[in-house]
Amino acid sequence: MAAARKIIIDSDPGQDDAAAIMLALGSPEELDILGITTVAGNVPLALTSRNARVVCELSGRPDIKVFEGADKPLLRQLVTAEHVHGKTGLDGPVVDEPTMPVQEQHAVDFIVETILAEDAGTVTLCTLGCLTNIALALQKAPEIAPRIRELVMMGGGFFEGGNITPAAEFNIYVDPDAAKIVFASGIPIVMMPLDVTHRVLTYKHRVEKIRAIGSRPAVAMAEMLDFFERFDIEKYGSDGGPLHDPTVIAYLLRPELFKGRDCNVEIETTSELTVGMTVVDWWQVTGRKHNARVMREVDDQGFFDLLTERLARL
Amino acid sequence: MAAARKIIIDSDPGQDDAAAIMLALGSPEELDILGITTVAGNVPLALTSRNARVVCELSGRPDIKVFEGADKPLLRQLVTAEHVHGKTGLDGPVVDEPTMPVQEQHAVDFIVETILAEDAGTVTLCTLGCLTNIALALQKAPEIAPRIRELVMMGGGFFEGGNITPAAEFNIYVDPDAAKIVFASGIPIVMMPLDVTHRVLTYKHRVEKIRAIGSRPAVAMAEMLDFFERFDIEKYGSDGGPLHDPTVIAYLLRPELFKGRDCNVEIETTSELTVGMTVVDWWQVTGRKHNARVMREVDDQGFFDLLTERLARL
Amino acid sequence: MAAARKIIIDSDPGQDDAAAIMLALGSPEELDILGITTVAGNVPLALTSRNARVVCELSGRPDIKVFEGADKPLLRQLVTAEHVHGKTGLDGPVVDEPTMPVQEQHAVDFIVETILAEDAGTVTLCTLGCLTNIALALQKAPEIAPRIRELVMMGGGFFEGGNITPAAEFNIYVDPDAAKIVFASGIPIVMMPLDVTHRVLTYKHRVEKIRAIGSRPAVAMAEMLDFFERFDIEKYGSDGGPLHDPTVIAYLLRPELFKGRDCNVEIETTSELTVGMTVVDWWQVTGRKHNARVMREVDDQGFFDLLTERLARL
Amino acid sequence: MAAARKIIIDSDPGQDDAAAIMLALGSPEELDILGITTVAGNVPLALTSRNARVVCELSGRPDIKVFEGADKPLLRQLVTAEHVHGKTGLDGPVVDEPTMPVQEQHAVDFIVETILAEDAGTVTLCTLGCLTNIALALQKAPEIAPRIRELVMMGGGFFEGGNITPAAEFNIYVDPDAAKIVFASGIPIVMMPLDVTHRVLTYKHRVEKIRAIGSRPAVAMAEMLDFFERFDIEKYGSDGGPLHDPTVIAYLLRPELFKGRDCNVEIETTSELTVGMTVVDWWQVTGRKHNARVMREVDDQGFFDLLTERLARL
Repeated sequence: MAAARKIIIDSDPGQDDAAAIMLALGSPEELDILGITTVAGNVPLALTSRNARVVCELSGRPDIKVFEGADKPLLRQLVTAEHVHGKTGLDGPVVDEPTMPVQEQHAVDFIVETILAEDAGTVTLCTLGCLTNIALALQKAPEIAPRIRELVMMGGGFFEGGNITPAAEFNIYVDPDAAKIVFASGIPIVMMPLDVTHRVLTYKHRVEKIRAIGSRPAVAMAEMLDFFERFDIEKYGSDGGPLHDPTVIAYLLRPELFKGRDCNVEIETTSELTVGMTVVDWWQVTGRKHNARVMREVDDQGFFDLLTERLARL
Repeated sequence: MAAARKIIIDSDPGQDDAAAIMLALGSPEELDILGITTVAGNVPLALTSRNARVVCELSGRPDIKVFEGADKPLLRQLVTAEHVHGKTGLDGPVVDEPTMPVQEQHAVDFIVETILAEDAGTVTLCTLGCLTNIALALQKAPEIAPRIRELVMMGGGFFEGGNITPAAEFNIYVDPDAAKIVFASGIPIVMMPLDVTHRVLTYKHRVEKIRAIGSRPAVAMAEMLDFFERFDIEKYGSDGGPLHDPTVIAYLLRPELFKGRDCNVEIETTSELTVGMTVVDWWQVTGRKHNARVMREVDDQGFFDLLTERLARL
Repeated sequence: MAAARKIIIDSDPGQDDAAAIMLALGSPEELDILGITTVAGNVPLALTSRNARVVCELSGRPDIKVFEGADKPLLRQLVTAEHVHGKTGLDGPVVDEPTMPVQEQHAVDFIVETILAEDAGTVTLCTLGCLTNIALALQKAPEIAPRIRELVMMGGGFFEGGNITPAAEFNIYVDPDAAKIVFASGIPIVMMPLDVTHRVLTYKHRVEKIRAIGSRPAVAMAEMLDFFERFDIEKYGSDGGPLHDPTVIAYLLRPELFKGRDCNVEIETTSELTVGMTVVDWWQVTGRKHNARVMREVDDQGFFDLLTERLARL
Repeated sequence: MAAARKIIIDSDPGQDDAAAIMLALGSPEELDILGITTVAGNVPLALTSRNARVVCELSGRPDIKVFEGADKPLLRQLVTAEHVHGKTGLDGPVVDEPTMPVQEQHAVDFIVETILAEDAGTVTLCTLGCLTNIALALQKAPEIAPRIRELVMMGGGFFEGGNITPAAEFNIYVDPDAAKIVFASGIPIVMMPLDVTHRVLTYKHRVEKIRAIGSRPAVAMAEMLDFFERFDIEKYGSDGGPLHDPTVIAYLLRPELFKGRDCNVEIETTSELTVGMTVVDWWQVTGRKHNARVMREVDDQGFFDLLTERLARL
């Protein structure tokens, strides 16, 4: 049997980040979580750091190392999304405050040191929030770029438009300059845009299946999803909300659930109207170099089956 | 029976412009064409003026008045699309050079004078190319804006992306500054974006039905479509090419063929990466004012039935 | 003796525009004013048209043809400068409302027709306000550009910075897009920037010399200058205000009063921070093509002597 | 007697950086150099780090700690200035390769740790190159900003225009995004723009006075200035080149040599034409908050007397 794949999860939990982390924690034979690094995004940094630890403890894994990173984007004011995630970012279930500590090392230093310490080509970055920590790591130590196996991100959108503005998806919008650095870095990127995540909807029967597992983490996850789905159901008039972040982990576990294409992706950083847009050259109308694999289709039921199965293992 | 609706067709023919003009010429009881104004776009001005007259003569209507307008965009270099339309813009059939004259009056002056001379709220502008002539008319005589009944345009794209760049549709890309002026003018706008026109495909059996009419204009149109569809069939791997411009005229004749939504639309003019993009706030995530009715769905067979029926009348 | 030089004055009066027009009207042997065209700028169009006629009547020249042009910039909202010029634009003296008519022809059409009707290379454009009318003429009839002898403008600034923003001078700021069109047109341009006009100060003794002429126009001009200088004296703490626009006419009459250099000048149109800036490559650090003669030095006493002498002739 | 002022010198030597460092090293009773941090700029990082150590050893101070920082700007490609400084950045004298080591700690970590370790309000940053290291420190540890006593920088220009483009000075142009972060940080900033440094010219007699000191460091400095001045003498047609960076150190030693004004300064980052410009609101025409003391006048002979005197102490 192959060794577990080494990953660092960079995240700003958020209920759907929580689902992604739990999906990874429920897959220990396939994924070796070297650390979770946090960043400001859905909610401020103090809360994303708290929430990352809440999720680890809820999953019975207080041994996971959590590192705090950037408390704001590279060049811009922080924009948060409490209108989606609630005040704490994990609104929904009643949870205990975490007792496990945050590591002393800065997230950026942890990322740099880990990638330099591990064998080249073995560490995968999973990013569930804005890309500030990754960009800071690349700024400080550009030599890490060719050593990263792959960066799988939730972020962007194209044929689906944006969610925070008509043109931009939230994670990229929060720190477009960081995204620009990452997409120009040469790291092999797999991108899960809204075009995928808006096809992965938390229909009632899917949430009920998770609740029916009956364990503490599964019930808490169901309660998070009850809360989380409310915003998008109202906005789009659909029967469930999109479950963005776990698609990143699902891709590592079962890549065949997704279909996409190698493309050029550029990040808009100058125009107020379109800032944060991921301009995907899907039809190859420019001569620009491919720098990402952009996913567009997903086996959504296969995805939920995987998520439910792994949550049941926690 | 209601009087025919008064329209000015502003156009840069182009095979699909030709189809639009023929659709209008084939509907004399419903549409009263006050004039056709030409603009540089698909091909340079001298050719679009020639082509407009070719189409009128081919349709047996050398009496239609054709006015020449802008030979370049407001602020930018002209970009043309011979890679789609061929050298002349009407590549496909063998046609005679036109003998009918171009009017002496400048297109912009014709537009201004006509709108001021006709009763307020009676003239509809149908734009099939970039919006330079309309913007120049609005710059010279802002008082025409509230007198225009409606402006129905082929232009833009959103959930479909662009065609000339990943973000921009050709007509808007050619003169984004003109588009910005028009969308800010307060004129009631109906927009036929790529989201609609890419659903109106020239399948072989549809083109054959047009050819089967057997008349000179119908056969020429079929030959134009044979040529025109080649580019997009190769690009998108579809069984037919999108037939953009006649959707504008079809909307005037049978609006029920289309479904859309009132939205805010802003035009990107500053960023090199996204210039010419129509940023459509379909999901109402901004508070910006509605300034256009953006179409997204079309009864494509109904559209081709209408087109075929009217071509048969020529 | 040489024939008088044919000029069109495009203006948005403004007290200093008035001084420029009077300087031209006082020089009939050297300057043949084909017409005065007005544009919105210092004050709205209705007032600039009124003021142009006030100045002509005050100077005993109700025969001068005045044409109304654009009432707003090409792409932007109109910005005016009543804080400098007062409510009417000519605050200071008591003046009669003008009785001479505005011509029926649009200023843009007058400019185009005149340049096409006169011998190529004989008509000089003198612009004292924003460049909207000139840009509209160039948009409508690009063929006029090589027929224009010279365009002498008051506008821009460089080593002096701006006046309406830290980076931009008012005339260019009001319609930077028009300025961009003009600077790209190939017309031979002479530019009188703030670097020159801030060296032409209305010291008290200079104004008194004008008042001492004793004629109605001269006294009115002195009263205008009394009003006009107040704003800049307070802002810069100098003993007089800069007298911008008459430098344009003075250059036609006595070019040796000015020293400058052929340069490349580009107009900033995209950045909110620097929009309207005239980026002058004085030190030739770019390889960009020269497109204007930029003045930087002036014999200020020579200028005032000329102005006073010609006002005395009215 | 007061204790020496604690400073960190962030630099990309460069002959004029060398003069600044020597001026500081020659003033040990007034300035306590906690460390020199290097950044890519005038020449690539490997050379700026070498050059910083060359200067220390030349001055008999191999004990000074030198830390390497960023090897490229935050978001952009590195632009260097070998056309001014020569291949090595210190072209002119023959120098030995340095034997003192570069510290292991990253410059950014050194800056952060030092500012957090020293008493709040005691450490002054002296920046002689682009601001990448300072911006990275602020990104990683925003809490350092209120603890910095003052940041004195060579950078920018306003009434003097730019030097690398018509609008931008080299240090700001190289990393405008870093500059934007620094100017928005709330750190008390003193700015030495081209408006000052172009008044501090290396006239022959001034260089000879330095050479006449006769010591190894003084002669080497004279030889550097011989080389360095050639570029600007040719460009501006002056009798000596501007000596930019030592003005920063001179200000710490004798602030009364300079005169300036508290202003708002904004950094242009979006427009290709004006990127890197320091937009100084000298005349207070905007309501924007003061964020820097911008110097405009200098006692140039006093400055050279100071420099010569301190070089003689090495």
